[in-house]
Amino acid sequence: MTFAATILTLYPEMFPGPLGISLAGRALERGDWNCQTVQIRDFATDKHRTVDDTPAGGGAGMVLKADVLAAAYDSVADGRPALAMTPRGKPISQARIRNLAQGPGAIFVCGRFEGFDERFFDARPEIEQVSLADIVLSGGEPAALAILDACIRLLPGVMGASASGIEESFEDGLLEHPQFTRPPLWNGREIPEVLRSGDHARIANWRRERAQADTLERRPDLWKAYFGGSDTDGFDD
Amino acid sequence: MTFAATILTLYPEMFPGPLGISLAGRALERGDWNCQTVQIRDFATDKHRTVDDTPAGGGAGMVLKADVLAAAYDSVADGRPALAMTPRGKPISQARIRNLAQGPGAIFVCGRFEGFDERFFDARPEIEQVSLADIVLSGGEPAALAILDACIRLLPGVMGASASGIEESFEDGLLEHPQFTRPPLWNGREIPEVLRSGDHARIANWRRERAQADTLERRPDLWKAYFGGSDTDGFDD
Repeated sequence: MTFAATILTLYPEMFPGPLGISLAGRALERGDWNCQTVQIRDFATDKHRTVDDTPAGGGAGMVLKADVLAAAYDSVADGRPALAMTPRGKPISQARIRNLAQGPGAIFVCGRFEGFDERFFDARPEIEQVSLADIVLSGGEPAALAILDACIRLLPGVMGASASGIEESFEDGLLEHPQFTRPPLWNGREIPEVLRSGDHARIANWRRERAQADTLERRPDLWKAYFGGSDTDGFDD
Repeated sequence: MTFAATILTLYPEMFPGPLGISLAGRALERGDWNCQTVQIRDFATDKHRTVDDTPAGGGAGMVLKADVLAAAYDSVADGRPALAMTPRGKPISQARIRNLAQGPGAIFVCGRFEGFDERFFDARPEIEQVSLADIVLSGGEPAALAILDACIRLLPGVMGASASGIEESFEDGLLEHPQFTRPPLWNGREIPEVLRSGDHARIANWRRERAQADTLERRPDLWKAYFGGSDTDGFDD
C-alpha cells in the first residue's frame, strides 16, 4: 500500500524537497509513498487570486481566508486524516506518527502569515490542528516536512529489517540510551566497559539505567509521565 | 549583520531546500542570512570514507563516529552556538530561537542512523543537544530546517515592520488567540461581534480571554507554566 501524502500550500515547490533525498527519497522512488501538492491559491475566487485578508479586529499580518481554504481542502478530502499545521494545535507525538504511518496517508494544510480563519476549523471539524514544536515557523511547510519524514521512516520496508523503529527515544516513554561505536579508545575516552563485555543482560540493564537517568535529567516532563506522576522522584522508596 | 548558518550533514543537497523559497528565500537573496554546508563524509579518514559503525554492545542501526564528527565540527567551530539535532536533546523553545536569532548564526550538526557516538558530546561540551519535537526523524536535517526557519523570520527586516514577531503563540507563554477575516458571514458562520465592534479595549480583552481558554484546553502544560504552577486551575479563587 502506498502512503498518500497531500499537501495544501502556497509553496508547492517546497515538496518533496528534502524528502526527495536519502531514505525518504528512495522510498518515494519505490512507491512506498507519494506526494501530491495542492496550490491553495488556485481556489481563490477573485481576479487577484486573493488568499488572505487583514485580521478582523485589527492587528499585524494577514489571515488565510476560510472560503479559499475550505474549497482547497474539499478538493482532496477523502477520509484520510487531515492535519493543519499551527502553533495553536495539539503537539504531535510519536504515538500519533505511528498511527498515521499505519494508515492510508494524510492531508497536510500549511498556512502562512498570521494563521487560518478559525471558521475553517469550525466548518471542517475533522481537521486536526497540530503543533510540531513550541516555536513559530514562517509557515506550516517545515512542520509538514518533519511530520511526513517521521511517518515515512516507519512505513513497511523503508528501514528494512532494522529494529530501529522500536528501540528508540519516545517509543517506551523514555529517551534512548547513549550510543558508542569504534574505536574503543578515542581522544582519551573509552567506550564504557559494560558495552564491551558481551554480557547481554548487563548491557540491557546498563542501557535501561542510562535511559532512565538521562530522561530524569533532561526531560523531567517525560519522566513524570513515564511514572504516571504517582511518585515525584520516580525511584523505588 | 548576516546570520551565518553552517550545517554539518551527510546530505548537503537538502539545504537551503525549502528555505530557498518564500520569506526565507528572499532573506537569503538579500544576504540577511547565509547557508554553508559541510559534508561530514569529507572528514572520514579511511579509503571507504566510513562515517558510521555498529553500536558498541550490539543493537540495530549504525552510530556516527566521534572522530569523524569532531573533525567535521572543528573545521567550522568559531564560537557560534552549535546545536546537534537529537531526540535525546533539550526541547527547543521560542525563547532559545529568539536568542539564536539575535546572535551571529549557528552551527547545526545533523545525524542519521541510530545517533552520535556520545564521546563526541563529551569532548565538545559546548555543543547543545537539541530536540525539535517528541517524534523520531530519519535524520537531523528536517529539524535543522525548521529551527533555522524559525530563526530567519525573526532576523531584522525579514518580516518588515510587522509586529507579527511579538503577538503570537508562545511569546507570552500562551497560545495565540484565534483569527478571523472577511467575509463577515461565511457558510452560516459569523465573525464574533466583538471583533467587528471597533472597541479596541473590548477586542484586546476578548483575545486575551480566548488565548487563555484555548491554552487551558489545548495545552495544560503551557497553562501550568504560565501560572507558575502555584494554582492548579489557574483561575482566581
